[in-house]
Amino acid sequence: MSLIVMKFGGSSVGTPDRMRHVAGRILARQREGHDIVVVVSAMGDTTDDLIDLSKQLNPNPPAREMDMLLTTGEQVSIALLAMTIQAMGGEAMSLTGWQAGITTEPVHGRAKIADIAPDRVHAGLKEGRIVIVAGFQGVTEAGEITTLGRGGSDTTAVALAAALNADLCEIYTDVDGVYSTDPRVVRNARKLDAITYDEMLELAHLGAAVLHPRAVEYAKQYNVTLVVRSSFTDREGTQVKEEAAMEQGIVVRGIAYDKNVARISIMGVEDVPGVLAKVFGALADAGIDVDIIVQSGVQDGKADFSFTVSGDVVDAAMQVIEEVRGAVPYREATSESGLVKVSIVGAGMVSNPGVAAQMFQTISGLGVNIKMVSTSEIKVSCVIDAEPLNDVVRALHTAYGLDTNEQAFVGGPQVRR
Amino acid sequence: MSLIVMKFGGSSVGTPDRMRHVAGRILARQREGHDIVVVVSAMGDTTDDLIDLSKQLNPNPPAREMDMLLTTGEQVSIALLAMTIQAMGGEAMSLTGWQAGITTEPVHGRAKIADIAPDRVHAGLKEGRIVIVAGFQGVTEAGEITTLGRGGSDTTAVALAAALNADLCEIYTDVDGVYSTDPRVVRNARKLDAITYDEMLELAHLGAAVLHPRAVEYAKQYNVTLVVRSSFTDREGTQVKEEAAMEQGIVVRGIAYDKNVARISIMGVEDVPGVLAKVFGALADAGIDVDIIVQSGVQDGKADFSFTVSGDVVDAAMQVIEEVRGAVPYREATSESGLVKVSIVGAGMVSNPGVAAQMFQTISGLGVNIKMVSTSEIKVSCVIDAEPLNDVVRALHTAYGLDTNEQAFVGGPQVRR
Repeated sequence: MSLIVMKFGGSSVGTPDRMRHVAGRILARQREGHDIVVVVSAMGDTTDDLIDLSKQLNPNPPAREMDMLLTTGEQVSIALLAMTIQAMGGEAMSLTGWQAGITTEPVHGRAKIADIAPDRVHAGLKEGRIVIVAGFQGVTEAGEITTLGRGGSDTTAVALAAALNADLCEIYTDVDGVYSTDPRVVRNARKLDAITYDEMLELAHLGAAVLHPRAVEYAKQYNVTLVVRSSFTDREGTQVKEEAAMEQGIVVRGIAYDKNVARISIMGVEDVPGVLAKVFGALADAGIDVDIIVQSGVQDGKADFSFTVSGDVVDAAMQVIEEVRGAVPYREATSESGLVKVSIVGAGMVSNPGVAAQMFQTISGLGVNIKMVSTSEIKVSCVIDAEPLNDVVRALHTAYGLDTNEQAFVGGPQVRR
Repeated sequence: MSLIVMKFGGSSVGTPDRMRHVAGRILARQREGHDIVVVVSAMGDTTDDLIDLSKQLNPNPPAREMDMLLTTGEQVSIALLAMTIQAMGGEAMSLTGWQAGITTEPVHGRAKIADIAPDRVHAGLKEGRIVIVAGFQGVTEAGEITTLGRGGSDTTAVALAAALNADLCEIYTDVDGVYSTDPRVVRNARKLDAITYDEMLELAHLGAAVLHPRAVEYAKQYNVTLVVRSSFTDREGTQVKEEAAMEQGIVVRGIAYDKNVARISIMGVEDVPGVLAKVFGALADAGIDVDIIVQSGVQDGKADFSFTVSGDVVDAAMQVIEEVRGAVPYREATSESGLVKVSIVGAGMVSNPGVAAQMFQTISGLGVNIKMVSTSEIKVSCVIDAEPLNDVVRALHTAYGLDTNEQAFVGGPQVRR
């Protein structure tokens, strides 16, 4: 007998019909002989509706009261799902975050889970019940209600699976797994049977954000085996775990991309210690995330460096660069928008030299100029112009042997709440 | 410096505008120099909407999960009200039932409060905050979420006032106080300045059920002074307390009535011990509430007796009477529907003989036949035909000196959620 944690997102329980469908899947899984713990998000648009209502009353609502407000969404879901399962002949009980023993750090809106004492979950399972836990929420030691922020329900599921020593944590979503690339770009993208935590983190920005990076990090930390699968079909999903065998002859697991990338270059910066810290410290203080950073060689005691930011914040970033000019003298700062980042990801590339070279050749072969390069042990990223992106992704997908004969499932909404 | 508990019902916070209005009243009360604890119900139709949703998924939902579901309604209200007060420059914090230390017995749907340990309420007040507590809900010792059933938010307010040793518990509603009779029947009904707990209990069935009897009983038990007042006007309300002075020359505080009364008569019952217990035990087992019971004298070892029930259950009651015929032989059982009960209520009538006689004279003077009479220390009730009810109420109102020159406030909805 094994213990499975099943997590359903808000769109999976957005209507009474979907709620019944989910209840049916849960009962089917239980009939296979498993102990079942369910984590569920707020129904459909509930969270957005509550946020809208709060904005009418306070345009800048205190985070503590937002947590008090928003956690009701999941509480409604767990109660209704428990009722639905009971109506279908099952035995279920719902638990809020605090009832499930989910303690967080004392922060509102984006708390991290500090500890889980799942006594009541165990008690419910012992009575033969399906235990349904509210995702996204916890309680501080002082008894304050908190939320875990974006991707919170995924994190609740993984953390519960770790605390319960569950055999599996299934993330049900509206795509049927993790693909070798965005199926909207490459119709014969490959649904992956398995992928490592690190690869999943690198691929997280693929078209459908099927799994929140925080949950993946948590799963990696506690070695929880995840399965991403569809709540609407019976297809096997994608396993996410520490070691995932590569298929014969394949070293790259998938092709990821980021649209809307901008490059900022700062030229002629005096090459003294602390310069980079000043620039990127100022950007961080302004809440601007920097992705790739490249520094070229030093000439005449002056250095040039470039970095990428989201195209949305390029103006704000340029303003910060202007403001630090007093502290960090430089000759010139320029920005270029309308770029994209394309990445190949695969744990196998560490032991396969020439993988990066093949990428550069493939891109150059299309007559596309590579503007920046960044490499890690499992990823090579190139920044290029936006226009040829789809051609580049398709060419890379073919070059690394990822094309299948099967056509990718692209029905249903692609962006998960 | 005094401590005031202010309770607002669901219709008082049913829209963002009303929420802001309530926040304004709370802040005004605080500016007068009081410590303020607020108890609030779920907004407008929230509770009914949640019940409707649950019925779609489970026509007979388990009480535990209904409590889990419905308590979210008050949690939304407290968060939004706290935000609204903050937006208007005040300092507020919300607390759920369990956070406010409200422990109930382990029953779902209609739990009684077992204990209140308001440490966090005190802590919030000490920080200068307005503390907003969710009405209607509590938690068992085992950490199960419970609801208090009908009138639950009134009870929460009174129980908190008792636990906090508050100076006053104000119940804000959509009528501006307790009237000497239904203002829809008698336009110059008298708004009462003060009334005793017992009188309030007897008058509870007046047109607008302004205060739940359970809350009044709780207030009487812990000697909490209540004030019933309008959330829409600034008029002084009605005080409900242990001793309330009668105005000069007035012995009756108010005229109450019950519509839709039926009388059942059982004739020729053998007069042996235990007969009444059998009949009324069987009715109680069938969930039928009996009001007035009258037994006439015994003749030839046979007794006649009559009692009243709500007109809605007269058929069910007659069926029970038929079923007990084996155990309780009788000659004949008859029923009469279309009756009403009219009552005069006043703590002063104990020491004023002739009050009942004046009632009988007044009713008879209108040519109306009195079918049954029941008396208690502070109430005399007569059952009469429904048709002349309004004339009887008006005549009694005048006869007991209750008419005022002021016209009663009858604007706004008369029946409170």
